[in-house]
Amino acid sequence: MKAEIFSVGTEILLGEILDTNAKYIASELANMGIDVFYKTSIGDNEKRLLDAIDIAYKRADIIISTGGLGPTDDDLTKETFAKYFNKKLVTHKESLENLKSYFVDEDMPLSNLKQADLPENAIVLVNENGTASGCIIEEKNKIAVILPGPPKECIPMFNKQVKPILEKYTDKVLVSKNLNLCGIGESNASEIIRDLMLSSKNPTIAPYAGNNEMRFRITASGKTKEEAQNILKPTVDKLYSIFNEYIYGEDDDTLQEVVVNKLIENNITISTAESCTGGLLASSIVNVASASKVFLNGVISYSNESKVYELNVCKEDLEKYGAVSEQVAIQMAEGIRKKSNTTIGISTTGIAGPTGGTDKKPVGLVYIAISIEGRDTFCKKLMLKGDRQKIRDKTVHICFSNLLKLI
Amino acid sequence: MKAEIFSVGTEILLGEILDTNAKYIASELANMGIDVFYKTSIGDNEKRLLDAIDIAYKRADIIISTGGLGPTDDDLTKETFAKYFNKKLVTHKESLENLKSYFVDEDMPLSNLKQADLPENAIVLVNENGTASGCIIEEKNKIAVILPGPPKECIPMFNKQVKPILEKYTDKVLVSKNLNLCGIGESNASEIIRDLMLSSKNPTIAPYAGNNEMRFRITASGKTKEEAQNILKPTVDKLYSIFNEYIYGEDDDTLQEVVVNKLIENNITISTAESCTGGLLASSIVNVASASKVFLNGVISYSNESKVYELNVCKEDLEKYGAVSEQVAIQMAEGIRKKSNTTIGISTTGIAGPTGGTDKKPVGLVYIAISIEGRDTFCKKLMLKGDRQKIRDKTVHICFSNLLKLI
Repeated sequence: MKAEIFSVGTEILLGEILDTNAKYIASELANMGIDVFYKTSIGDNEKRLLDAIDIAYKRADIIISTGGLGPTDDDLTKETFAKYFNKKLVTHKESLENLKSYFVDEDMPLSNLKQADLPENAIVLVNENGTASGCIIEEKNKIAVILPGPPKECIPMFNKQVKPILEKYTDKVLVSKNLNLCGIGESNASEIIRDLMLSSKNPTIAPYAGNNEMRFRITASGKTKEEAQNILKPTVDKLYSIFNEYIYGEDDDTLQEVVVNKLIENNITISTAESCTGGLLASSIVNVASASKVFLNGVISYSNESKVYELNVCKEDLEKYGAVSEQVAIQMAEGIRKKSNTTIGISTTGIAGPTGGTDKKPVGLVYIAISIEGRDTFCKKLMLKGDRQKIRDKTVHICFSNLLKLI
Repeated sequence: MKAEIFSVGTEILLGEILDTNAKYIASELANMGIDVFYKTSIGDNEKRLLDAIDIAYKRADIIISTGGLGPTDDDLTKETFAKYFNKKLVTHKESLENLKSYFVDEDMPLSNLKQADLPENAIVLVNENGTASGCIIEEKNKIAVILPGPPKECIPMFNKQVKPILEKYTDKVLVSKNLNLCGIGESNASEIIRDLMLSSKNPTIAPYAGNNEMRFRITASGKTKEEAQNILKPTVDKLYSIFNEYIYGEDDDTLQEVVVNKLIENNITISTAESCTGGLLASSIVNVASASKVFLNGVISYSNESKVYELNVCKEDLEKYGAVSEQVAIQMAEGIRKKSNTTIGISTTGIAGPTGGTDKKPVGLVYIAISIEGRDTFCKKLMLKGDRQKIRDKTVHICFSNLLKLI
């Protein structure tokens, strides 16, 4: 069973709207085990739509189309499919009543009447959220599902009326799990399990690169949900055993949530002393709900003076080693921890650019330090690439991944 | 000149990601006067991609493709286009150097090397934001523009490197100007100039809703750039006269840049005292290059204790009025200004949720205060809607728009 998704509407080709319907329907079809090999966007044009239908039915059994069911002349999706299948349009009584019910306060323009005309013998999908009925045409092993464009009408119609009909065409159930990794890049991680990825057909393993991190998505197919889950499990376990030190969470877990929640669970308080990240580290911690239970205080110490009066950094060391140095990073982390009376103090100092770099201390040089009560202060030197924003983002990410290792 | 947009990647067919690249590129092509009649999404599959290329070149002169330039075996866009055009892949030196520069923390896997292999005789688009170079192949009146998938890489590459090349294929010159407004919403602003928007054909006026702000994009078309600019000017002037108090900048100007650059120009130093925004305000200031000239110090004061010892907030007032109050906001702003010895001190305190709200002080209640040397301290009470992240974003935005008014 192969499906192709059509998005009909000139506004999509002009880039005026994001095609959220196609994403939603694609994801639902994937979960139902219906293959989608192509998505096509076409303008409101009969000739080009007919051509696209022709092409699609050479490579798919079913077209699911959204858009072009409005009352104006350029809405012609239904008419074009009817022409393709050689079917007349006939007035559908229930659709007409539904349509009229939307015009209680004002006169209905005659042009709207065409929204109640549907291809003869089609399954009609009366619209609970608008005036345009959808429909399903099935003929000679070709199926067309024709849905309205507005997501508020399209998505409920798909969920309530189309899915139950599609389910009879598939006997597969798909189950997925994402494993989220940090501290290793997509290519290195994929390299390690290259053979496994290539040989795994059910479940499949797919790598995805994220912002400073990566994930593996493992997807199994079975006749029942339980069967699919049983097929999934051994591969998930295997990946856990291979990447144990890098996996920080599953599915929607974010690194910052995992770290902050670990601090909350263990009642570990934290404070921040930031230079180059300028508040981004604190802000990422505070981003997690309930962070106030463990995050007590932070300083953004941008000037040398404030490093001395806010964080008790030694003035002589600042002059001797410079603000971007291991010595200053360590003193910042220790200074904020003591001042804020927290278990952990964490600091960043570096050159985010675009100016301020020198031969000895180029743009991208960053030090992070983590001071934990009763332990030696941890310090790491980084040489980062990218623009100002990227360097700051990466620094914050590396703070979190190192925090995770240490707690 | 007809173009077709390809989005290559199984994750798009599985509905895992929204195809923002295709929307952006479609909108840019529309502005350049290049017609797009179809968009096609295809999985990472050689046979199906070859078929799609074949179909596309029957109906378009140029394919603009995004995605499938990663280091893994299933990334095969470049290879497939090379096969279609019968071209060998050869190592591109500059791409290789760019690629290597991304691996500082870890060894580069050999699989990555293929990202530096590009079709012979292609125009190579070295990636300023990632490891995958793009390219342009031009042969027998067929053009293929092959771009990486991540929007952060794809969009800048398209804007900087592809648009100048595409411009030579169109005889219309389009000139646009964006007017960026804050303090007024998209619908209210559009309502004011509704008739003007409907009647304007050249230039066109389009409103866009942004994050806490809006913009009007005015686009004129002419035979030369000069002609287009002359057509544009009267409408831009008109909008300036109507929306003068709301327009803070043009085109790529951001509110934070405009504000921070104004501080820099006038040598006005600033410090921040944040509670609910948790570093986001400081981070937004520091985001602007050269902010270090005026931003000296910031405190993220999350606990009541630290409001006292960091910002000299009166303990009795904290108990009497609570941390989220006008009194405390004002004392925070004054406290950070005096401590940091800056011209301006700015503070935020509020309830970002999801918990912590009460009947008297619900989630969304925020106070911001701005203390300026020699003036009465400004304080504003906000009642914001939305989730934690949205409340914090809006608060920071309102800090900037009020700073702009005051300086």
